[in-house]
Amino acid sequence: MTEHLSLNQWTTKGWSLAEAVAGCVQAGVPGIGLWRDKVAEHGLDAAAQLLAESGLTVTSLCRGGFFTSPDWKAENEAAVDECVALGTDVLILVVGGLPQGGKDLVAARRAVADGIAELAPYAQERGVKLAIEPLHPMFCADRAVVSTLGQALDLAQEAEHETGCDNVGVCVDTYHIWWDPQVFAQIKRAGAAGRIHAFQVCDFLVPIPADALLGRGHVGDGVIDIPEFVRAVRATGYDGFTEVEIFNQKVWDTPGEQTLRTVIDRHEQLMRASAETPGSAATDRE
Amino acid sequence: MTEHLSLNQWTTKGWSLAEAVAGCVQAGVPGIGLWRDKVAEHGLDAAAQLLAESGLTVTSLCRGGFFTSPDWKAENEAAVDECVALGTDVLILVVGGLPQGGKDLVAARRAVADGIAELAPYAQERGVKLAIEPLHPMFCADRAVVSTLGQALDLAQEAEHETGCDNVGVCVDTYHIWWDPQVFAQIKRAGAAGRIHAFQVCDFLVPIPADALLGRGHVGDGVIDIPEFVRAVRATGYDGFTEVEIFNQKVWDTPGEQTLRTVIDRHEQLMRASAETPGSAATDRE
Repeated sequence: MTEHLSLNQWTTKGWSLAEAVAGCVQAGVPGIGLWRDKVAEHGLDAAAQLLAESGLTVTSLCRGGFFTSPDWKAENEAAVDECVALGTDVLILVVGGLPQGGKDLVAARRAVADGIAELAPYAQERGVKLAIEPLHPMFCADRAVVSTLGQALDLAQEAEHETGCDNVGVCVDTYHIWWDPQVFAQIKRAGAAGRIHAFQVCDFLVPIPADALLGRGHVGDGVIDIPEFVRAVRATGYDGFTEVEIFNQKVWDTPGEQTLRTVIDRHEQLMRASAETPGSAATDRE
Repeated sequence: MTEHLSLNQWTTKGWSLAEAVAGCVQAGVPGIGLWRDKVAEHGLDAAAQLLAESGLTVTSLCRGGFFTSPDWKAENEAAVDECVALGTDVLILVVGGLPQGGKDLVAARRAVADGIAELAPYAQERGVKLAIEPLHPMFCADRAVVSTLGQALDLAQEAEHETGCDNVGVCVDTYHIWWDPQVFAQIKRAGAAGRIHAFQVCDFLVPIPADALLGRGHVGDGVIDIPEFVRAVRATGYDGFTEVEIFNQKVWDTPGEQTLRTVIDRHEQLMRASAETPGSAATDRE
């Protein structure tokens, strides 16, 4: 039942890369999502070798983006190169917020569009797909001015139109987009265009904790009907990995083995639940 | 320069109704937005008399809604009746979140649509307009399953289609909707349909404070280009009040007179700034 399950390594933040790889191998989890800082700690070449020997599928690298920062280009090209070295074809893009002190959201969004169009050919030549991740609107100012799946898909389309590159798509993350009235229509659109490059799950906790960034929970602990999202994504023909990415201080304070055990248990429950009769959102999808 | 300025009384939460009314009169602020709890403290009849004698315009009453609660109907009809007594024709609707323990967002949204359609004729017969307030998506689970202006306008249209009542519109609140990529198009749509029943302003503070509900700041203290919103709303022909509604512990800990002084100063700055050359969002609005 761990088929198509991937552990995003920030879920077990206390683990080094080597520990996370060993943990996944031992538990029979076939996929892992990596973070650049953790890879750098281990050293890129050594990390690449470790992963190749592990037999794990590297489902994504977090993260490129931050196109509103001055050094975005060198950083993003380096991230693409790291994808190649690590053997993953998916770079997650957290696009960046407003420039420091700025309030011109429209201009920031244009900068993001320009940056993606500039990065796409570099990534395409190296066989890397770009997964634009819409972030919850509460992070619009400081992390990502892309707030909806529809907006991310518009950007992907625009990049393809401008560059001819077909490697720009989206990361569907339940935590960030569950509230969107258009989300199921946009998942359908993303799938039809072959643009679902990553599927990440975790739950939205209520109340939002003191550090709003850390309000993510294990699947089932929050308010999202996650089985419905699994059904929606699968209905488009997506048969890739489900990556579990949780930012949560309590989860981080838990030993990695125990967190991974919970991730596996919840994944099994999720797979069972999503095989059951769909809820009313399914009708809404039609 | 206080023309068309309204103080939402929760901005000066430490003030009783009588103190807020006296504060506005003394400072030359012509409008006040009321809350049902503050009115109840004073007594409805006495409040109605106080307001009539004050000469203030009551720009709105907060709040009806919470259509996913069992007692929504009696509460909302009472709120409409209080609007009539207080001499305001605008009831703000915070529509309610998911039912306790529920995860069916689509069903919750249907319940909201049904509730609004049921309430509209009762309000229309009494000369009261309903202003659906989309809340920031961070409050989707516990306060309002209506998260965008577009969604609120769809609900207003649906209610009119079903009931023939033309009294359902929206509350445009900068804090809740500033991040929405479609917001300027939807403000235009709202104005064209005559559905801007209330315009509330305050700023979005970053970082989000420990209590996420209280991350609102005085105009200018956050990340929103508020002058651009004033321009957008005015461009539709809206010439009503600008109501300042701030939930913020520091603001609440400040003496009411001082808060009201800041509100007035910021309003004057906002009026000047919004009369200046529009930013890039204006182009986006076309």
